[in-house]
Amino acid sequence: MNRVILYGFGYIGRMVAKEIVESGALEIIGAIDVDEKIVGKDVGEIIGIGKLGVKVSSEPEEVFEKAKPAIVIHATGSFLDKVFDQIVLAVEYGYHVVSTCETLAYPWLKYPNLADELSRRALERNVVVIGTGVNPGFIFDSLPAFLTSICSKVEKIKATRIIDPSRRRYSFQKKIGLGLTSDEFREKMAKGEITGHVGYAESLMLLSEMVGLDIANVIEDQEPIISHEYLETQYFKISPGKVKGIKGYGKGYGKDNKLKAEVEFIATVGVSDKDSIEIDCGKYVIKWSSNGVPGDYATVAMLLNVAKIVNNLKRGLRTMKDIVLLHA
Amino acid sequence: MNRVILYGFGYIGRMVAKEIVESGALEIIGAIDVDEKIVGKDVGEIIGIGKLGVKVSSEPEEVFEKAKPAIVIHATGSFLDKVFDQIVLAVEYGYHVVSTCETLAYPWLKYPNLADELSRRALERNVVVIGTGVNPGFIFDSLPAFLTSICSKVEKIKATRIIDPSRRRYSFQKKIGLGLTSDEFREKMAKGEITGHVGYAESLMLLSEMVGLDIANVIEDQEPIISHEYLETQYFKISPGKVKGIKGYGKGYGKDNKLKAEVEFIATVGVSDKDSIEIDCGKYVIKWSSNGVPGDYATVAMLLNVAKIVNNLKRGLRTMKDIVLLHA
Repeated sequence: MNRVILYGFGYIGRMVAKEIVESGALEIIGAIDVDEKIVGKDVGEIIGIGKLGVKVSSEPEEVFEKAKPAIVIHATGSFLDKVFDQIVLAVEYGYHVVSTCETLAYPWLKYPNLADELSRRALERNVVVIGTGVNPGFIFDSLPAFLTSICSKVEKIKATRIIDPSRRRYSFQKKIGLGLTSDEFREKMAKGEITGHVGYAESLMLLSEMVGLDIANVIEDQEPIISHEYLETQYFKISPGKVKGIKGYGKGYGKDNKLKAEVEFIATVGVSDKDSIEIDCGKYVIKWSSNGVPGDYATVAMLLNVAKIVNNLKRGLRTMKDIVLLHA
Repeated sequence: MNRVILYGFGYIGRMVAKEIVESGALEIIGAIDVDEKIVGKDVGEIIGIGKLGVKVSSEPEEVFEKAKPAIVIHATGSFLDKVFDQIVLAVEYGYHVVSTCETLAYPWLKYPNLADELSRRALERNVVVIGTGVNPGFIFDSLPAFLTSICSKVEKIKATRIIDPSRRRYSFQKKIGLGLTSDEFREKMAKGEITGHVGYAESLMLLSEMVGLDIANVIEDQEPIISHEYLETQYFKISPGKVKGIKGYGKGYGKDNKLKAEVEFIATVGVSDKDSIEIDCGKYVIKWSSNGVPGDYATVAMLLNVAKIVNNLKRGLRTMKDIVLLHA
């Protein structure tokens, strides 16, 4: 199955479209978005590669009615309650859904009822629903899990991701609060107007289930990083005393209150990108580190690579656990 | 299925036994070896943990007759032609086989006829046969493939493994020629008395199939590294002018003669352990590096982690490609 509907044609949706056109391996047969500025326009023209013959529609039913068979690549939001109806509609029409929705990466944690309903509906319609991306989906969960393949047991896992947000899309820079005061940051976080990184706890639960860490309790938090100098990115001007980034963490504890896994995310202007994963196997500790993983590209690649195999997965509400078979 | 027969009770087989006993997740119900010094002795006593009630036997048929159901963990040799009869016997008795045999990691390259026969017999008996370990099995193939999950396309992959052999088992130090003269090294390599690392080409073919690199031609070679000073390991004394290690490589080329993947292995006394993997995704290059992966432990863990899921795999002659589902 190589036909794709893009549900959400924002920054990520457009990057997905570009990759699909460049690779030639998949075909875009529909695009859905609510943004009035692009509704009715040709997908190819929006991404600057000339007419593709597929227009952005604001009516999902119309697209779903005509498009079968296809896979829905869904990139509209981070919180399952906000995007639940969109995903359910795709499922009801009989489409597999591969989504960037961060909380869908492990939906039983924060939305157990919605997860159960989605699971039931996906099974009824014989389709797969799965949440993935670079994070959740890779750096804090699938990759550490896969790296435990060469461990007979795992005492503790720590994963850290450090990125310079000035290389990321506008919506990413906005959601981590660049340029705000510390108070504005906290207020907007409390109201849900900005989110920081979403998925610390979901990654930990996913990792726990993959590797069998038996995490019973997770905590997560984020705080702003304040700049002492004037900085600017493509989209934000940051005065001294304003937010230049975010630092967040998640920690997962076993029933004995022992720390089993922790993840740390630092996105701050001017830092060198780096990911690191440390696995304590008891007899030895293995550390892997990267020179940085470009988040938006990586998320797009992950969506497409999961889309390529989604039809081989067991039907229902799935997670990366169903794809990453090898681990301790 | 948690019952295990150890076919080969040398260094790796004994490490597997120790891990099994420590973890308690699997049960050893048989052990086979030809070494007269251990035949008839209790497996637990050989590994120094007291009687386990399982004796090493030199008669595979006797063990296979009594042991069902179980998984055979096979660790007797690197070359499929030498161990073919052992594996076939296990298959004929209806056992899944998880083997360290390096050339079994991708047997179609050097033993296409044996691979076809093994494939046919495994299908007939409805069992799985698979070759794995740290390398082939992880560092040069499965791990680079998995790391391409966040790439939309892959231009080129390079993996390098650097290890200090003085931390490895006697048979490893011997097979890379420690303490030999350069001439002795070449003579013994030519005669097959020592092998160096086995599996450069197999890893490349496996990686090619996983990621779709379309490698059409592979080359591989190894040469000794000569010491300029006196060195010694637990097992070998190395005079100046003698072999202190080995350097080898494999390169895989596409039909257009373009280099698609290369692997490099350096095992030399006194070096700092390090693995590195570099993936050129076209738009960006991702580099991951480790602080070293202890080879023997890692191989043992991989055998056990694959054994845990072998019963879920499609029957027949399988490779790590059937386990590593996610990649570019």
